Amino acid sequence: MRMVVTGGAGFVGRHVAAAVLEAGHECTVFDAARIQRELGDRGVRQEFGSLSSIEELRRAFRGADVVLHLAGVGDVYLAAEKPWLAAEANVLGSANVAEACLAECVGRLIYASTWEVYGHPVYEPLDEQHPTNPDHPYNVTKLAGEQLLMTYDSLRGLSVVALRLGTAYGTGMRANSVFSVFITRALRGEAITVSGDGRQHRQFTHAADIGRAFVAAATSAIRHEALNIVADETVTIRQLAEMVVAEAPAPLSFGVARAGDISPARVSSAKASAMLGWEPRVRFSEGLHDLIEHHRSSITADGS
Amino acid sequence: MRMVVTGGAGFVGRHVAAAVLEAGHECTVFDAARIQRELGDRGVRQEFGSLSSIEELRRAFRGADVVLHLAGVGDVYLAAEKPWLAAEANVLGSANVAEACLAECVGRLIYASTWEVYGHPVYEPLDEQHPTNPDHPYNVTKLAGEQLLMTYDSLRGLSVVALRLGTAYGTGMRANSVFSVFITRALRGEAITVSGDGRQHRQFTHAADIGRAFVAAATSAIRHEALNIVADETVTIRQLAEMVVAEAPAPLSFGVARAGDISPARVSSAKASAMLGWEPRVRFSEGLHDLIEHHRSSITADGS
Repeated sequence: MRMVVTGGAGFVGRHVAAAVLEAGHECTVFDAARIQRELGDRGVRQEFGSLSSIEELRRAFRGADVVLHLAGVGDVYLAAEKPWLAAEANVLGSANVAEACLAECVGRLIYASTWEVYGHPVYEPLDEQHPTNPDHPYNVTKLAGEQLLMTYDSLRGLSVVALRLGTAYGTGMRANSVFSVFITRALRGEAITVSGDGRQHRQFTHAADIGRAFVAAATSAIRHEALNIVADETVTIRQLAEMVVAEAPAPLSFGVARAGDISPARVSSAKASAMLGWEPRVRFSEGLHDLIEHHRSSITADGS
Repeated sequence: MRMVVTGGAGFVGRHVAAAVLEAGHECTVFDAARIQRELGDRGVRQEFGSLSSIEELRRAFRGADVVLHLAGVGDVYLAAEKPWLAAEANVLGSANVAEACLAECVGRLIYASTWEVYGHPVYEPLDEQHPTNPDHPYNVTKLAGEQLLMTYDSLRGLSVVALRLGTAYGTGMRANSVFSVFITRALRGEAITVSGDGRQHRQFTHAADIGRAFVAAATSAIRHEALNIVADETVTIRQLAEMVVAEAPAPLSFGVARAGDISPARVSSAKASAMLGWEPRVRFSEGLHDLIEHHRSSITADGS
C-alpha cells in the first residue's frame, strides 16, 4: 500500500515511517522538517509542507491509500505556552488533513491521539469507554482533533481510526523529554534530579511498537474506533532514574513536581489486542538500554 | 461593570447585550457585523473586528471587567459544511479571546457553550457530570473551545465560566432555523413540513433568559464551572408546528429526518439554579407568540 506519514520527520513519526517500510509498504513523509538521512536512503519520499496548506497536503496525499496523521504540536510544554498554536495545528490542521484526504480520494486516515485525553481517572484501568476530561491545552486539542476526524468518518465517509498512544520513548526523543534529560546528564556524570518524589508512573511505550500499531490499523478494516496503544509495563520515574544511573553512574536527587505534568493512571490496551492483534514487543529494560547506548555512541561520535 | 459581548451583533449575542444594559452595566459589542440600531441607540459601543486578530480583540477589551464570549460558528449546518472554519472560530478564536483578556488584564470570561456537548445520553436528565461525547463539527469545536478556556483558568489564572446553552429562540433568529422557516411559511399561508415524525423534542430556551444567565454568571464569584442553561419545558417539533399554525393557519405535513440533527435528551439546569439563582422566565407559549407577532409586523412593515 501507499502510505503517507504526516510529521514523519518527528520523533514518533520517523518510527512509524520505519515500520511502514518494514511491513513492505511505500512511504511518503509530509513534514516541514527534513527526514532523517537513513529514511531517505531506504526509499522514503519526502514532501515538504505545512498543515495549514490544503494544497501542500493534497500534493503529498495524491495517489495514497492511507494517511497516518502524526503532525501537530506534541510537546506538552509548548502547548501550555502557546495554546492557540496547539489549537491551530492539532484541531484546524487535522480538519485540513481530512479535507485533503477527501479531495484526493484517500479513503482512510489513522490519527495519533493520546492516552492523556481521559484526564483524571474515574476508574482504572482506563479503557476506551472511559469519559474524556482533558485538562491541558495538549490533550484538549488532541482530543478535539480526534473527535473532529470522527465526524469526517460519520458525516463525510472518510474511514478513521484514532490511536490513543502511551507516553512514547525511543531514539530521536525531544531534548526536553525526561529520558533525554536523564540520560544526557548521567552520561556526563552530572546529577539527575527527579521531579516530585518519583513515584508517579507511566506505561512508557516504545515508538517502534507504536509504529507497528499504525501499520496494523492502516491495513485493518476497522473504522470509527479509538484504541489505546499503551504498553503494559508500569515504570515509576524513580525506577527510570535508577535504571539510567545503573548503566551510566551519576548522583540522584529529588526536587519539586513540575506544573502541567499529567497524573498517572493505569491504561488497558485490550481493545487494540482484540481488534488489531497489537501487542507491545519491546520490553522496557531493553528499550531503555538501547536508548542509552544510542546516546552514548552519539556522544562518542560528536566527541562531546 | 464594563462588559464586552463578542458576537453581540448575532442572534443570541444581541439578547445578551440587551440583558447587560437592562442590568445597568456598560456594554461594548465586538463583532465583524454591525449591531442593531436599537442597541446603538441605547448606548452600546461597537468595536469591529475578527476573532483571528489579537490586536482587534485587545482594543475592544481594553478597560473591561468581563468578556462574554459568544462569537464563533453557531450554525450547525455551516459547521458541518466547513469543519475547519468551525475549528478556527470556535477553538483557535477562543484561545485568542483568552490571550487578549490576559494581555488587557480582563480577569473574567463567560463562554457560550452548548448542551449539545454531551452527545448521545448515557443517563437523563443530562447534568454537568454527564460524559461529553460530541459527534458533530459544531459540538466538537464548541466543547474544545470550552475545555481550552478552562485550561486558561487552571493554568493561567483567567477566571472562566462556561454556559451550556439550550437551543435558543427569540427575535433575530437565523433564517434557516426551524422557527423562522415555520413562521415565515405559515404567515404566507404556505405548507409547513416537519422533518421526521415530529416527535423529536427540545427544551427551547428564550434568548432573553440566556441573556440574563450571562449577566448572572458575569457578576457571580464562581469560576472553572460549566453550567447548563436550558429551560425546563419540553416541546416536540410537532407541537411547535401546531402552535405556529394555530396562530397563522397553514397546512402541515411530515417529511424525512435531516442528517446532522441532534437527538433529543432531557437536560437539567439545577446547577445553574443553585449556583447563579438562574431560572427561565419566558414561558414557551409566550415567547413563541411574541416571535410570531414580531414576524407578522416585519412582514407588514416590509409590505411583503
